[in-house]
Amino acid sequence: MGLSVKISELSTLAGVNVATIKFYIREQLLPAGELVKPNQAEYDDSHVRRLRLVRALLEVGGVPIATARDVLSVVDSTESIFRALGVAQKSVSPVIDQTAISPASLKSVDAVLTGWAIEPHNPGRLAAAQVFSAFTEDDGSTGVSESWYAAYAKAARDVAVADMAEVDRRPDRASKVEMVIMGTVLGDVLFAAFRRAAGESVAAGAQQAQC
Amino acid sequence: MGLSVKISELSTLAGVNVATIKFYIREQLLPAGELVKPNQAEYDDSHVRRLRLVRALLEVGGVPIATARDVLSVVDSTESIFRALGVAQKSVSPVIDQTAISPASLKSVDAVLTGWAIEPHNPGRLAAAQVFSAFTEDDGSTGVSESWYAAYAKAARDVAVADMAEVDRRPDRASKVEMVIMGTVLGDVLFAAFRRAAGESVAAGAQQAQC
Repeated sequence: MGLSVKISELSTLAGVNVATIKFYIREQLLPAGELVKPNQAEYDDSHVRRLRLVRALLEVGGVPIATARDVLSVVDSTESIFRALGVAQKSVSPVIDQTAISPASLKSVDAVLTGWAIEPHNPGRLAAAQVFSAFTEDDGSTGVSESWYAAYAKAARDVAVADMAEVDRRPDRASKVEMVIMGTVLGDVLFAAFRRAAGESVAAGAQQAQC
Repeated sequence: MGLSVKISELSTLAGVNVATIKFYIREQLLPAGELVKPNQAEYDDSHVRRLRLVRALLEVGGVPIATARDVLSVVDSTESIFRALGVAQKSVSPVIDQTAISPASLKSVDAVLTGWAIEPHNPGRLAAAQVFSAFTEDDGSTGVSESWYAAYAKAARDVAVADMAEVDRRPDRASKVEMVIMGTVLGDVLFAAFRRAAGESVAAGAQQAQC
């Protein structure tokens, strides 16, 4: 509370070097400090928090700078949390050419996601259809069993419920929106990471069982 | 069974144009066809299946060509399925500088993954530690609740069990290894896709409840 520091101290506090902080300010990812003398600006808690968000997006999430700027503009706006989720999701979703997706694949995705409240243009629906296409055999069979798809859908839903609970726990709009963004971007990375670990662990268990 | 076609027919069957097939052969992603005349080669079922795998890796998984070559070399070898999993996992894991990860973050990851059979250098363990670091507050608190991390770990484990069941269902080594690779690479894309859909669906439900 009431933090008021020079850029050098902000650098130490946030673990980001001064040149990088200046770069973020030029790129409008971080608001400029408050000028207290003609050549000295002061920074507060909001800068420390924003720096954490910027680094999470760029360094851990691998989000391009222009996209990060769009995502961060939602934090500073009065947009709803639901809208923030949409922007954050779009930032980490590949652009998909809808015309390249077969209607059969979309139908299979919709069958797995029966009862989910999603718009037809949800980026996840289209990306899932692309994966379904990749698995589909030449004779039109699905290639993998329905239970495999169902396990992924259930896991994704469990995680989305945990995300929402974590957002609900936050006290105010700003920290809720921050969690939506961090959760969306870092959640993918975290899940893929845990999946690597789980894959090794489950396979090691199976290998053990065969000995 | 017993398919034997010219490159133009292979192109039609697999939905990949002839120039692209030739490119894959030059890049050693696809074995050359069998020469039946000095300027005519024939292709069989194995080429159709390999083309599906190549496209899944490059187009849906976004794997670089050199990495795809390494992954595919495991399919053609007699390496164990466990080893195939390791190579496939590495192909979709970012290279992480272990010295940049704080011991505290690694300790937190290990606490969440208690009881998992993984090696210290598992790429997922290190990537997860990076995410933990990104969430950690300046005062050292974790930023997000333990139950959030636990939900992700459980979902990842559920998915790994489904992956293993799907591999077990395959009749022979070649198709098992193919599933390990497709599952590892496309599974990340599928989960992220379903997570986009689940996020919208769960948030829409919460919004509805507030009305």
